[in-house]
Amino acid sequence: MKKIRAAVVGYGNIGQASLQALQEAEDFEIAGVVRRNAADRAGIPADIPVVESISELDGVDVAILASPTRKIEEQALEILAAGINTVDSFDIHSSIPALRASLGKAAREHDAVSVISAGWDPGSDSVVRALMQAIAPKGITYTNFGPGRSMGHTVAVKAIEGVKDALSMTIPLGTGIHRRMVYVELLPGYTLETVAAAIKADPYFASDETHVIAVDSVDALNDVGHGVNMVRKGVSGSTHNQMLEFDMKINNPALTGQVLVCAARASMRLRPGCYTMIEIPVVDLLPGDADYWVEHLV
Amino acid sequence: MKKIRAAVVGYGNIGQASLQALQEAEDFEIAGVVRRNAADRAGIPADIPVVESISELDGVDVAILASPTRKIEEQALEILAAGINTVDSFDIHSSIPALRASLGKAAREHDAVSVISAGWDPGSDSVVRALMQAIAPKGITYTNFGPGRSMGHTVAVKAIEGVKDALSMTIPLGTGIHRRMVYVELLPGYTLETVAAAIKADPYFASDETHVIAVDSVDALNDVGHGVNMVRKGVSGSTHNQMLEFDMKINNPALTGQVLVCAARASMRLRPGCYTMIEIPVVDLLPGDADYWVEHLV
Repeated sequence: MKKIRAAVVGYGNIGQASLQALQEAEDFEIAGVVRRNAADRAGIPADIPVVESISELDGVDVAILASPTRKIEEQALEILAAGINTVDSFDIHSSIPALRASLGKAAREHDAVSVISAGWDPGSDSVVRALMQAIAPKGITYTNFGPGRSMGHTVAVKAIEGVKDALSMTIPLGTGIHRRMVYVELLPGYTLETVAAAIKADPYFASDETHVIAVDSVDALNDVGHGVNMVRKGVSGSTHNQMLEFDMKINNPALTGQVLVCAARASMRLRPGCYTMIEIPVVDLLPGDADYWVEHLV
Repeated sequence: MKKIRAAVVGYGNIGQASLQALQEAEDFEIAGVVRRNAADRAGIPADIPVVESISELDGVDVAILASPTRKIEEQALEILAAGINTVDSFDIHSSIPALRASLGKAAREHDAVSVISAGWDPGSDSVVRALMQAIAPKGITYTNFGPGRSMGHTVAVKAIEGVKDALSMTIPLGTGIHRRMVYVELLPGYTLETVAAAIKADPYFASDETHVIAVDSVDALNDVGHGVNMVRKGVSGSTHNQMLEFDMKINNPALTGQVLVCAARASMRLRPGCYTMIEIPVVDLLPGDADYWVEHLV
């Protein structure tokens, strides 16, 4: 059976984890890694091409975009225009509909598929959240994150002027309310007050209780473990008090990389267009034949 | 927007719960209830037709088969032949592939859709189980049921000679191992020994620790609450110790009826054929437009 040729675009935490997940997936072969400096091959096996543009790689079926969320749309539009599928873990929930419209138009024009927001939240959590909504249509779902490092929030802090390094921890306070504990190493000449104000004004932080703490070494605090607890108490038919709960304790980039690889696989089975995870049959995330999984999992 | 016209076939626990879920679903209208004795209208609102054959109802889009598992195939084949979609909660896991093949052929021939095994297990649990498998491809998933009444097992006991009434409780022992606590009212002239032997020989019970207890009143023990705890510890990419868990405490027929209504809705959006829940995008279980749910749930 022909293997799916995937490229990894970006080689930070998520790119590295995506490459690892591809190496473990027997239905994939790795076309190469795309990064700004192709000479930097640190940690990348010698048999994997490293290039600066995806156009330098042959026969790519799907590109895993492991880039900062705010670069996703531009990169995806360019790659879709070449008829190559894209998957990403775009994580600004409120901007997902606009991204889906934009990439959907491009995907259909170029006979390609884009799967967006395919991490764990948005991503696999969205699938569970939608399922909970369906099977208990009235009620409230609370998504409680952490304790753990938020990659999206950490990247947002790192982009702020005066920040040398940063870590944003998400602390669950229950009923979907979170505290943000932000640890920063400051660049010379910047004060904690200025940097803290800029962080608190960022859309990632504006609606949450946020504490900004200056530290000597962010690296010394670093742990990529994370978690989620989703609870829904709701009504099925006319019966109240249905109790549903989903809980994970996970290595964050490893799970994100794995979900991206699942989404890359699904992209090969979908008609041209742009999809979020709730629009994809779960079986399409799995390797091999649906018949096998119907027999073994249903 | 045109409403989906659904018929409920069978009016036991699941049929009643399905009717309640339909009454709460604004995108459905109720074509009628199909049962053996149409004169028995107990508990059915006066404006809902009760008939003995689905052919007596007008313009049915989808039939919810709320019948014993072992009658599903025959009923579904007959209804699909009339070009009407079917959904069921067929629950013998090992027989699902054969049912899917049989109903799939009929559905495609008659330009209809069948969604099978759409309860909670098989059903919504299957979706979570498949998602867990996808996002942590190596590892073990344990599905622990109960404590709660198993409808499938209870029906199986009731079919055994000498049993007047029965209740089969499922007790989770961890790591997917269960005890069956079976409470029976015996008919005159039958001994507990004979009936217990017949129960333990039934395929529903043959592989589990089973205790059969004679009681004066099964009705006095009756509670349709149930639960499930699914746990997976697995590997995402090359990262071990990913911990995933799904937990429910629910009214069993209410949840089954609700999932059936979700599946009936999805049946209107799928191409002709037969599907299990893992083969359906989760968003198709929800009413209204995918755009709405992408904006609100992803």
